[in-house]
Amino acid sequence: MPSSTEPTLFAVVMAGGSGTRFWPLSRRHRPKQLLPFADGRSLLLATVERLLPLVPAERLLVVTGGAIAAAVAQDLPTLPTANVLAEPEGRDTAACIGWVAWRLAATHPDAAMLVVPADHVVPDGSALRAALAAAAALASRRPALVTIGLQPTGPEPGFGYLELGEPGEQVNSFEACPVRRFIEKPGLERARELLSSGRFRWNSGMFAWRVATIVAAVRRHLPDLAAGLDRLMEDARHLGEAAALARHYPTLPRTSIDFGVMEKADEVWAIPVDFSWSDVGSWPGLAEVLPRLDEGSVLGDVLAIDASSCVLVSDGPLVAAVGVRDLVVVATRDAVLVVPREQAQRVKEVVERLRAAGREELL
Amino acid sequence: MPSSTEPTLFAVVMAGGSGTRFWPLSRRHRPKQLLPFADGRSLLLATVERLLPLVPAERLLVVTGGAIAAAVAQDLPTLPTANVLAEPEGRDTAACIGWVAWRLAATHPDAAMLVVPADHVVPDGSALRAALAAAAALASRRPALVTIGLQPTGPEPGFGYLELGEPGEQVNSFEACPVRRFIEKPGLERARELLSSGRFRWNSGMFAWRVATIVAAVRRHLPDLAAGLDRLMEDARHLGEAAALARHYPTLPRTSIDFGVMEKADEVWAIPVDFSWSDVGSWPGLAEVLPRLDEGSVLGDVLAIDASSCVLVSDGPLVAAVGVRDLVVVATRDAVLVVPREQAQRVKEVVERLRAAGREELL
Repeated sequence: MPSSTEPTLFAVVMAGGSGTRFWPLSRRHRPKQLLPFADGRSLLLATVERLLPLVPAERLLVVTGGAIAAAVAQDLPTLPTANVLAEPEGRDTAACIGWVAWRLAATHPDAAMLVVPADHVVPDGSALRAALAAAAALASRRPALVTIGLQPTGPEPGFGYLELGEPGEQVNSFEACPVRRFIEKPGLERARELLSSGRFRWNSGMFAWRVATIVAAVRRHLPDLAAGLDRLMEDARHLGEAAALARHYPTLPRTSIDFGVMEKADEVWAIPVDFSWSDVGSWPGLAEVLPRLDEGSVLGDVLAIDASSCVLVSDGPLVAAVGVRDLVVVATRDAVLVVPREQAQRVKEVVERLRAAGREELL
Repeated sequence: MPSSTEPTLFAVVMAGGSGTRFWPLSRRHRPKQLLPFADGRSLLLATVERLLPLVPAERLLVVTGGAIAAAVAQDLPTLPTANVLAEPEGRDTAACIGWVAWRLAATHPDAAMLVVPADHVVPDGSALRAALAAAAALASRRPALVTIGLQPTGPEPGFGYLELGEPGEQVNSFEACPVRRFIEKPGLERARELLSSGRFRWNSGMFAWRVATIVAAVRRHLPDLAAGLDRLMEDARHLGEAAALARHYPTLPRTSIDFGVMEKADEVWAIPVDFSWSDVGSWPGLAEVLPRLDEGSVLGDVLAIDASSCVLVSDGPLVAAVGVRDLVVVATRDAVLVVPREQAQRVKEVVERLRAAGREELL
């Protein structure tokens, strides 16, 4: 179903995450996407700036949580404030994407939309934009759900994998492929098998589709979500959006767009790409974002003497690290984390213990 | 030359130290003796409280540096403020002890004096007092310089060692021994030899003597210091003590009482003791002061998960240490130190680098 006219293109940046993997730097009111991991800019701002050459600010929407909406708006001074959309609470990606699609359907039913996470790093912005433009072009031609398929760099056990079919369609300089199936979090051993087959890509969480296509797919595969969004939009017309959100958003089914829609949909395509990418998933993941030094990854006021392969981060106090290796040290004014690189994911245990101890001021 | 009447006994606590081994907790204006290493009390306060059953507060003098004299007085609210004596600058222990001896000679020429460092830990206060009382008793009977000889617990390469002669005199329950010679900082190999000989004790830096005896010894072995102190006391009578100190103190020869007097004096005795003692010489030395936990030595707001044999100290921020061993972590509001236990002495390199970088606010 090729389209003869290019649809208007919107970009939706999903900035609702609130993980604990970057504690003590990340807190409830300052999640990962607001951390200054992109040459002093936040990951969110870097994401928006990467997209702006492709989509003008007035058509760039950022969806985030109500608790951090003000901080997000402050981080993005050039974005129209009406373009920061606040969820009353997080209901996972299907609800988030559905809400924006329903909103756009009311005003721009023929538009296409990109969906991009706010907290990933892609150093080569123009390569990313070329891939997103191709994904949008493919989504304009076909009633397809299009994802960006990343070249895996290792057997990541917790990522989502796409099995690609034979290349089916040339889009600009890309050979788009139909997606045969999704495999979520395969575990280490299975991930190794997937990699060695050569047919699998990482699911990037970056998507393109027409508004009408995703609305139809949600109606088909997540009818409860669609019904909730219908009620939300209806009430918004009478009560205003804030009241409608407060009433209906917390009742929306909680599922991911991958599990709820992509895995079930008929026509799913991938644009295979080779550019460098990172989801900066943990403190050691900073190595892929920060300059690599002998001492490791360093951010802020750090004095390293004979340190090697460390992650040394300060948000205020001087961090003096002497004679240590493979260690993560993160210091803020009120909390310090010290953990071996290999055990960095155990920061979650710290956060759990603090929560159990009622140390809300540190969360 | 036994004395028939017991001389009046003074105690002099030397609190002038300003080391860097406890950075970042210790700073220029908060040296080790003011750190809360004694059940929440400072080492200085604990030292004074150990002495008070032996010497009343009005005869307990604390000598310290001008820059921290106010903090010292604040730490010791029960001590008469006139008993805190401030050196205009540190001139090592011979000048410090000489100054107090000259002062006492002017008012209490027949007195005896104890000299005790402010920053050591002796858990058994009554054992210490018994030893000091015996040292004072011996010093009253004889024109001797008396030191407390500690039972070594290991071949400490940087300590001072005393070679004891045959027991020469019973004093209370102690067998006082003449000291044959002093050996300063023998190094590790030599220290092992000294230990295996069984004739050596650690020089504690705790002394007893009559005022007249130490004044005579300084006159004989450090005539330049004696002349400077004569001028200081003379000017103090005309100009007041503050003006005299400012004029003369910085000109006094800089040497230690051990090197300048003890090693050269004729009649030096030791009271051998067996009580537990620590000079808390480094971050790992805290293990001898703090309760021993599985995670090691812990002070302040610390959350340790699977940590072992560490030194974890906070003066404000929460320190969360996960999966680390044999590590020193010390956190204050403006600086954090992380160093393996075995390299803890390298904190000096940090301080040197900060000084070279002009980071005065952190020193």
